[in-house]
Amino acid sequence: MPNKVEEFNAYRAKMNDKLLAENNKVIKRIFNLDTNAFMPGALDVKTKELLGLVASAVMRCDDCVKYHLESSKESGASKDEVMETLSIATLIGGTIVIPHLRRAYEYWEELEESNH
Amino acid sequence: MPNKVEEFNAYRAKMNDKLLAENNKVIKRIFNLDTNAFMPGALDVKTKELLGLVASAVMRCDDCVKYHLESSKESGASKDEVMETLSIATLIGGTIVIPHLRRAYEYWEELEESNH
Amino acid sequence: MPNKVEEFNAYRAKMNDKLLAENNKVIKRIFNLDTNAFMPGALDVKTKELLGLVASAVMRCDDCVKYHLESSKESGASKDEVMETLSIATLIGGTIVIPHLRRAYEYWEELEESNH
Amino acid sequence: MPNKVEEFNAYRAKMNDKLLAENNKVIKRIFNLDTNAFMPGALDVKTKELLGLVASAVMRCDDCVKYHLESSKESGASKDEVMETLSIATLIGGTIVIPHLRRAYEYWEELEESNH
Amino acid sequence: MPNKVEEFNAYRAKMNDKLLAENNKVIKRIFNLDTNAFMPGALDVKTKELLGLVASAVMRCDDCVKYHLESSKESGASKDEVMETLSIATLIGGTIVIPHLRRAYEYWEELEESNH
Amino acid sequence: MPNKVEEFNAYRAKMNDKLLAENNKVIKRIFNLDTNAFMPGALDVKTKELLGLVASAVMRCDDCVKYHLESSKESGASKDEVMETLSIATLIGGTIVIPHLRRAYEYWEELEESNH
Repeated sequence: MPNKVEEFNAYRAKMNDKLLAENNKVIKRIFNLDTNAFMPGALDVKTKELLGLVASAVMRCDDCVKYHLESSKESGASKDEVMETLSIATLIGGTIVIPHLRRAYEYWEELEESNH
Repeated sequence: MPNKVEEFNAYRAKMNDKLLAENNKVIKRIFNLDTNAFMPGALDVKTKELLGLVASAVMRCDDCVKYHLESSKESGASKDEVMETLSIATLIGGTIVIPHLRRAYEYWEELEESNH
Repeated sequence: MPNKVEEFNAYRAKMNDKLLAENNKVIKRIFNLDTNAFMPGALDVKTKELLGLVASAVMRCDDCVKYHLESSKESGASKDEVMETLSIATLIGGTIVIPHLRRAYEYWEELEESNH
Repeated sequence: MPNKVEEFNAYRAKMNDKLLAENNKVIKRIFNLDTNAFMPGALDVKTKELLGLVASAVMRCDDCVKYHLESSKESGASKDEVMETLSIATLIGGTIVIPHLRRAYEYWEELEESNH
Repeated sequence: MPNKVEEFNAYRAKMNDKLLAENNKVIKRIFNLDTNAFMPGALDVKTKELLGLVASAVMRCDDCVKYHLESSKESGASKDEVMETLSIATLIGGTIVIPHLRRAYEYWEELEESNH
Repeated sequence: MPNKVEEFNAYRAKMNDKLLAENNKVIKRIFNLDTNAFMPGALDVKTKELLGLVASAVMRCDDCVKYHLESSKESGASKDEVMETLSIATLIGGTIVIPHLRRAYEYWEELEESNH
């Protein structure tokens, strides 16, 4: 039975492939940049992923939050670190962020259950 | 048969409980503040709920709109008052608000049917 | 079997009818204006629809994107023109637009399949 | 010596006149609608102005906040009512609203000093 | 006497130079992409500039609006075409766009006076 | 001669004092929370300040960016770390962030010159 994490990643991968196959140079380069920006530099990967997470949360983009929750987890972020990041997002972005916080928490649970 | 109002409230309550159980001080206090801010003061509860509704609508947060539709109704707001509030949101926030206006209207009907 | 394009349009039409039946003057006039603004003027209809599309995409309103994808297509916009429009949206609006880009692309495919 | 309230209103009036002189039908009608939407209806003028204020504050539009502060004051809103409205904006919109709250408070003082 | 158009462009150029001198790869590539995205393709330059203008206006970025007003003008856009583009922005983005519309109109006048 | 950093901080402090003197409970608690949220926890202060910086930048709040630039610097963030944080903001938030990036860079220079 496919879980929600796998479903999300499968849809994401399928549509990204289609978008990249279009050969639109601007879109292709933005996708490339996205990979580059989160590589280790002055800041380590975990910090960068948490930056991506808080930015996604204040801009209230559920799919972006899911993506950065997974990559934060993979880069070694603990649940407490993720919760502190999301609490800063909720304070800065306001209670309007709370519905996204609920869905973020639910997705984190799904990540833990699916060993992602 | 659970209706959409009950489903929304059940999910909301379940996830809020989980979030509060995390004992993140910032998140807990924001939840507390949310209760406080809508208590009677210089402005009565109904006016405050309509303020919450218009703010939720211009920021295009469907779940926040649903929440404030229900609490507006409970505080005695009439359908005409809610429609005027949503019309101000649509004018200030632009036609980008219209899809949320459609869903708000649908949820108001569900609130009326479920006697919430 | 109703496809996603028909479902989207049916829901949209049903709720718009209900909203207009409320006789809220502000909402009715905004709906009227929406029709007016996209009529031919100094700019032709296709250009205006692409303006509506890019604005919808940077503001990350999926339903607005769907609506303007369909009307862009009807006004003669090619897939390449639509992709360039969406690429500008993604550059200006940032990677936060990408999840909406995936759904836009999927809906464009559905439009092509359903001959809309 | 012209004060900040007069300067703001003079610039606003001058540019609105120029915009309306362009005879762009959509812009002219939106300006008209703006006047209509804040007339008494199911909700009284003061409530509507506070709705306009909270919406302007969460969307972080300083000029819109100034405009609705002045019209809220003219419609009889007290400082306490305005502060409660702005506190709801800050809670819903987050700490990102605080810089606008500072400027709103300063403008309210200027309104009081200039007897607007 | 330096006019507002020259001041804006001088500040913009000076700070862009400093940003690019930092050698941050992501920032440099985004600047590059920005140039690429507005080159002629399936859409001509004027249409792309108007797309950039409407996106800037609904996102309420004054500096971005100024930049695209100037490049729209350089690519041959007439005042009527610009006004229609801005009217669509105001309808989609709501009355919250109006303060930016006033400043856009003022800057367009400055562009005309300075022969930019 | 007062520099821009001192001017910004003086205005901020003066208006915050006035706001807190109003004794609006919700506003006072949000100010308190803001202090709490950036204290050391699972994440250290520097990381939290960079989270505040990236969130402020994608939400395009110049004053918030200034505040977090100063506190990032005080918590030991290097220019490279700040630039990487801002580059992630520009990628996620789009080119619409660039005008804020210019002003952020300028303010960072002022912080360095004023030894803040």
